[in-house]
Amino acid sequence: EKVVQLDNVVAERGRHKHFMAKEIHEQAEILSDLVLRSTNADRTRVEGPASEVDFSATTRLVMVACGTAFYACHVAKYWFEQLARIPVEIDVASEFRYREPPVQAGDAALFVSQSGETADTLAALEYCKGKAGQIIGVLNTTESSIGRASDVILPIHAGPEIGVASTKAFTCQLLTLLKLAVSAGRQRGTLSAEDEARIVRQLYSLPRLIQDAMTAEDEVRDIAHWLSSARDILFLGRGPMYPLALEGALKLKEISYIHAEGYASGELKHGPIALIDEHVPVIVFAPRDALFEKLVSNMQEVMARGGQVLLVTDEEGARIAQDGTARVLKMPTLDPLLAPIVYAIPAQLIAYHTAVTKGTDVDQPRNLAKSVTVE
Amino acid sequence: EKVVQLDNVVAERGRHKHFMAKEIHEQAEILSDLVLRSTNADRTRVEGPASEVDFSATTRLVMVACGTAFYACHVAKYWFEQLARIPVEIDVASEFRYREPPVQAGDAALFVSQSGETADTLAALEYCKGKAGQIIGVLNTTESSIGRASDVILPIHAGPEIGVASTKAFTCQLLTLLKLAVSAGRQRGTLSAEDEARIVRQLYSLPRLIQDAMTAEDEVRDIAHWLSSARDILFLGRGPMYPLALEGALKLKEISYIHAEGYASGELKHGPIALIDEHVPVIVFAPRDALFEKLVSNMQEVMARGGQVLLVTDEEGARIAQDGTARVLKMPTLDPLLAPIVYAIPAQLIAYHTAVTKGTDVDQPRNLAKSVTVE
Repeated sequence: EKVVQLDNVVAERGRHKHFMAKEIHEQAEILSDLVLRSTNADRTRVEGPASEVDFSATTRLVMVACGTAFYACHVAKYWFEQLARIPVEIDVASEFRYREPPVQAGDAALFVSQSGETADTLAALEYCKGKAGQIIGVLNTTESSIGRASDVILPIHAGPEIGVASTKAFTCQLLTLLKLAVSAGRQRGTLSAEDEARIVRQLYSLPRLIQDAMTAEDEVRDIAHWLSSARDILFLGRGPMYPLALEGALKLKEISYIHAEGYASGELKHGPIALIDEHVPVIVFAPRDALFEKLVSNMQEVMARGGQVLLVTDEEGARIAQDGTARVLKMPTLDPLLAPIVYAIPAQLIAYHTAVTKGTDVDQPRNLAKSVTVE
Repeated sequence: EKVVQLDNVVAERGRHKHFMAKEIHEQAEILSDLVLRSTNADRTRVEGPASEVDFSATTRLVMVACGTAFYACHVAKYWFEQLARIPVEIDVASEFRYREPPVQAGDAALFVSQSGETADTLAALEYCKGKAGQIIGVLNTTESSIGRASDVILPIHAGPEIGVASTKAFTCQLLTLLKLAVSAGRQRGTLSAEDEARIVRQLYSLPRLIQDAMTAEDEVRDIAHWLSSARDILFLGRGPMYPLALEGALKLKEISYIHAEGYASGELKHGPIALIDEHVPVIVFAPRDALFEKLVSNMQEVMARGGQVLLVTDEEGARIAQDGTARVLKMPTLDPLLAPIVYAIPAQLIAYHTAVTKGTDVDQPRNLAKSVTVE
């Protein structure tokens, strides 16, 4: 019977060497489905479960999660503030649950978990019950403890995720949270119908953008030889690319055991730039958004101190800023709103191919479990 | 004339090899002055500038800073929530200023800067002008751009800080913020007169606690040989010791160039535990507070995976939890409220002696300036 099970498992993995590779490659299709599920036929409005949540009188949104799901909340904080003008607090569940923070009736409390069973996240939710005005669960497994305890469930529809390092669940969490922020903006009158329609049109371009981002895979495979010999790597970003830098570092840490760390690039001069020398590769996520020039300026300071930079940007960004960088990964040109979702692809590919080159166990990294159902 | 100036500078440094050492050793005395300055003669109430800030109708406190000053805000978030039940948002200034977050009239906005000239922090303050109900500056240099732009200034009275790595400014920022949180708690009726008097009595014990903590220096000097050979080090804490772990890691990074990273220990299982092996020392800040057992359990997971732990705790904490640790640093027994201030001492001593052992330039680390007055 064990042999049969193994065969099934291998069959599911298909042509891929690891589940993580399969799950990275599934994203264009899964995100395409998720866009279709939750927009109207005219492609002008977000619909579905996101519009069941009423943010019209929300004074504050509190988002709580662990690990990769927490970084999805961190990205979404930028979206909710920008599109819906809601003050947002984010916290990791293991801190939130024990510090007994003030939570009020005007607050909406939102919890993100792939499994729906993350122990600290569930405990944080229980703490908010009866205090927050509404409890929202953003879940892959909706039939779960967090699902049962939520007032509203937003399913992310990522399908089963087998690799311990979360990939497709992360991008599906992001897209689900972006749709929710759009819906909140409409309800609060901070996002016009035209702006919403423009964003929904952008969502329809997402599968193509993901496929374009995926074409960088050969280049990443090549770069992985350089990265796999590093002991320490920094990831930098600004704005919503700062939490993406944190997620990129976490992913690399989890499966390659390289000590990677993410930083808001404006914080570099307040300490971490002391680390920079030619032995620490610095990966910079730089879509051409309003912060591009600031980020390039931080990157140039890194290079002036001998830092070897891997610049992840689009064609025009590369033209402007690639001088002096060690390598460039080209991403498609896109609306900056979508950058955290699309740039998640190179973050995942970098972690995956670096780990494969090092020969670590990608799908079952040492010391880690898929769902952390104990504290 | 240059020789004269150098003589003056050396004279100021006194018997210490570095300004950083002098500034670490000054803290008991400076904090003692700061306690006296701002409490009544009966030792029952916080007085002075802290009580000039009116938090009675504040709906949210927004605290913004960079680097070490940001970690002081992060610690203070726990204090304000616990003592005054105010929802608190914290952010690094370089992110806050550009994301144009919602700031409302009910919000108090607080900015922490040693120099009062930190460019990103000043820009964040300017953004809040006319939006937030009040603008508070927590400053060492009150005659400064941030000082001039603030409605209320809380001076931290640390005296001139020469070492690039902030030490006494950090503990003075913490004490100033703690007094402000106590004052806010009184104003909001969430802290009784008895509780306030109890806390003020604790503040009077602070200089002795700092001196006690300082007696660990010989032990730290010895441990520094082990730490200085590490390439990567993790710092762990829970609750307000989580931001202290971040600050301990930043300090070590700044002056020893070792890649140190701080983590909320509850997040370990969500990724970073994959890094653990016998080559990565793990420093655990573990005062005996409500989270002590949880922290010890995280620490045991680290040790089960070969991690070499330096446990920083008090006598009783050592008795309970030292089995299997590589080394223990003993701190005085204390009220957990004061732990972030007192445990800052071993964090600073660890960074200092590790850097001295490595032979790096402690007072002028590579790539860093004392005040970051440009973006």
